[in-house]
Amino acid sequence: MAKEDHKKSEQSKSGQKKLSDHECEGCKLNSTKQTPYNELISLGKSVVQDINKGKNPKIELSVRGLSNVFYDKEAKTLALGDKTAQRFFFNVAHTKKFLQTIEVASICKNLLDSMKHASLRDVFYMAKRTIPNTKINIVDDQKETDKAIEDLEIITDFSRECLHVNANKMGSVAGKVIIEDSGDTIDWSKLGSGGWSIPSNVEEIKFKKVDAKYVVYMEKAAVWERLHEDRFWNKQNCIIMSSQGQTTRGIRRLLQRLSVEHDLPILVLTDFDSWGHYIYSVIKFGSISLAHMAEEMAIPKAKFLGIRAGDIEKYGLQKHFIKLNEQDIARLKQLSEYEWFKNSKQWQQEFKMMKQFGAKAEIQALSARGISFISDKYLPEKIKNQDWIE
Amino acid sequence: MAKEDHKKSEQSKSGQKKLSDHECEGCKLNSTKQTPYNELISLGKSVVQDINKGKNPKIELSVRGLSNVFYDKEAKTLALGDKTAQRFFFNVAHTKKFLQTIEVASICKNLLDSMKHASLRDVFYMAKRTIPNTKINIVDDQKETDKAIEDLEIITDFSRECLHVNANKMGSVAGKVIIEDSGDTIDWSKLGSGGWSIPSNVEEIKFKKVDAKYVVYMEKAAVWERLHEDRFWNKQNCIIMSSQGQTTRGIRRLLQRLSVEHDLPILVLTDFDSWGHYIYSVIKFGSISLAHMAEEMAIPKAKFLGIRAGDIEKYGLQKHFIKLNEQDIARLKQLSEYEWFKNSKQWQQEFKMMKQFGAKAEIQALSARGISFISDKYLPEKIKNQDWIE
Repeated sequence: MAKEDHKKSEQSKSGQKKLSDHECEGCKLNSTKQTPYNELISLGKSVVQDINKGKNPKIELSVRGLSNVFYDKEAKTLALGDKTAQRFFFNVAHTKKFLQTIEVASICKNLLDSMKHASLRDVFYMAKRTIPNTKINIVDDQKETDKAIEDLEIITDFSRECLHVNANKMGSVAGKVIIEDSGDTIDWSKLGSGGWSIPSNVEEIKFKKVDAKYVVYMEKAAVWERLHEDRFWNKQNCIIMSSQGQTTRGIRRLLQRLSVEHDLPILVLTDFDSWGHYIYSVIKFGSISLAHMAEEMAIPKAKFLGIRAGDIEKYGLQKHFIKLNEQDIARLKQLSEYEWFKNSKQWQQEFKMMKQFGAKAEIQALSARGISFISDKYLPEKIKNQDWIE
Repeated sequence: MAKEDHKKSEQSKSGQKKLSDHECEGCKLNSTKQTPYNELISLGKSVVQDINKGKNPKIELSVRGLSNVFYDKEAKTLALGDKTAQRFFFNVAHTKKFLQTIEVASICKNLLDSMKHASLRDVFYMAKRTIPNTKINIVDDQKETDKAIEDLEIITDFSRECLHVNANKMGSVAGKVIIEDSGDTIDWSKLGSGGWSIPSNVEEIKFKKVDAKYVVYMEKAAVWERLHEDRFWNKQNCIIMSSQGQTTRGIRRLLQRLSVEHDLPILVLTDFDSWGHYIYSVIKFGSISLAHMAEEMAIPKAKFLGIRAGDIEKYGLQKHFIKLNEQDIARLKQLSEYEWFKNSKQWQQEFKMMKQFGAKAEIQALSARGISFISDKYLPEKIKNQDWIE
């Protein structure tokens, strides 16, 4: 296999593999025009050079964590600052982490070599072995390999998906979109009641046709099934996407690609509660732990569609209020102090109202108005009136 | 709309609905040749008759819960006994439940009428309203409508899917299978890296072509992605299916339909731990809370493929042992005393070994042997040798 490039595997109908050009969308975001493969090789070479020169081998990387994360007002996302740190092999405080980073880099290189993808858990087991003639394991806990993978994201400036390490798989999508993926042509409008199952890694899918004006992303699969049964995506010319609770990296990247590559507004639909607001916050602004991935993950153009405080009275949802508990109140306070929410009048209004209500409400409370009220009235009205928070 | 039958909605490409004959697979399991619609009408009529005769309106139904659940040795599933109970309207202990059952029956009738499906949460909100001139809500908690739906399953002898109430949506599937669903023809072998997203309700899908020797069901989506990337289903001529942890009713029914309608062995692949064993137990024998649904849900022909105690030594998984905690030990004891496991030498051997090991192991520990060890060696060997528990 050619080592100078990171090649993509494509599966033919017979299950045979063939090579094609490198087509990872995540990789294209790297400004240096390098490939993940080259970056890993460079890392290895620099360590070998240090050794040959009799120097203490070192890895240099940006500091992660709160002390080096800031809200980039221009990009409107969380971002990593410019603090860097050096990790040395001959330093009792560094040596294990140094070894782990190199070990995981080697695993990623092998994955790229063999054109296969692994989960975080797989990588942990692949790294987990005892150093010969000692009783010391290279890793004892998945947290260690997870951290090493995040370090490699920073060192190489490629996402772990580009390094062939996948996140969780979850979620469904439907709409008038045709994609190519692993040699198959897939029409998201012709997949029955189930829809397309979103993979953990969406870097290599290609959009062939996107006939939609916007995307509605919802946290609840049951709401997705409601909209899908009502053919909402067909009537409104949009894409509907959901997970089940957690918004996986695969889903965030798919939303982001539709936002960036096809300029589609991403409308987020959650419960009227702090968890829903947090889901939105992560989608739009990114998260502290993934601040270094903002370019691949954050969606500054995402809009919050609902449930909004104003919907409560308008659609008579007060009777379906659920009282805030202590945790809800603490979370609400926390969210209202986020830098990106602090200066937003609209968000402060949402938080103030929730505090006044002393209550939250679920999206499914709309079903009390009729099973298809959400598809026939609530969403079309809101979208027509652009009743969302930018 | 014709009221004498429960009609199915089919969606045409333009999003228009048309009626077709009743094609719900779950309904076909009802021995009386009744329809869910008729059963609900009968329930209503009997209450009206009681009222007209000046009698205390009553509903008769089988008792649920442990006192009326037994292990049916012939069917090899959990089943409901013949204890019945009567619920009266004029009885302070019964009246609220009586009202809730009738209210939810009316909601289900409306769902069938409008050819739409609702989630459990939707049904709760549809039932949740205040009785006029009182401060009493028909329901205050989703548990109440959930119970009412289970009661209606028993009263009508139709599953809640047949009554158009859906469970959670989760899971993916791939294989050389062609189905028809909601007017679309879907080829499970041509859906890229994602696969088909399994809907919450699979009663109305039709199998057009099933080219597979068996089904592998796994609890972990990451393992599914591994097998899918390796085109395991193509090389081994099988179907691969997964959820993410929890096995939803939609997945159980899909597995059961493939077992019953296509006589495919269902091979269950989980971690070597009590949670994995419990997942298998529910798939094969059913569960106490759904004992009345054994015919639709239990899969007596399901086989436990692994991870088995014998695999631990054979594949060197001891180094990846995870120590049992107190909860694990309690759960292990509980499982080993289940009637259907108590008399199985093979299962008692598994439990004994786990106790001896004092440890559990994860399926992904196989990745320590190589990323595709599971697809290239572990599974093909086990399946060739029929190394499973019947």
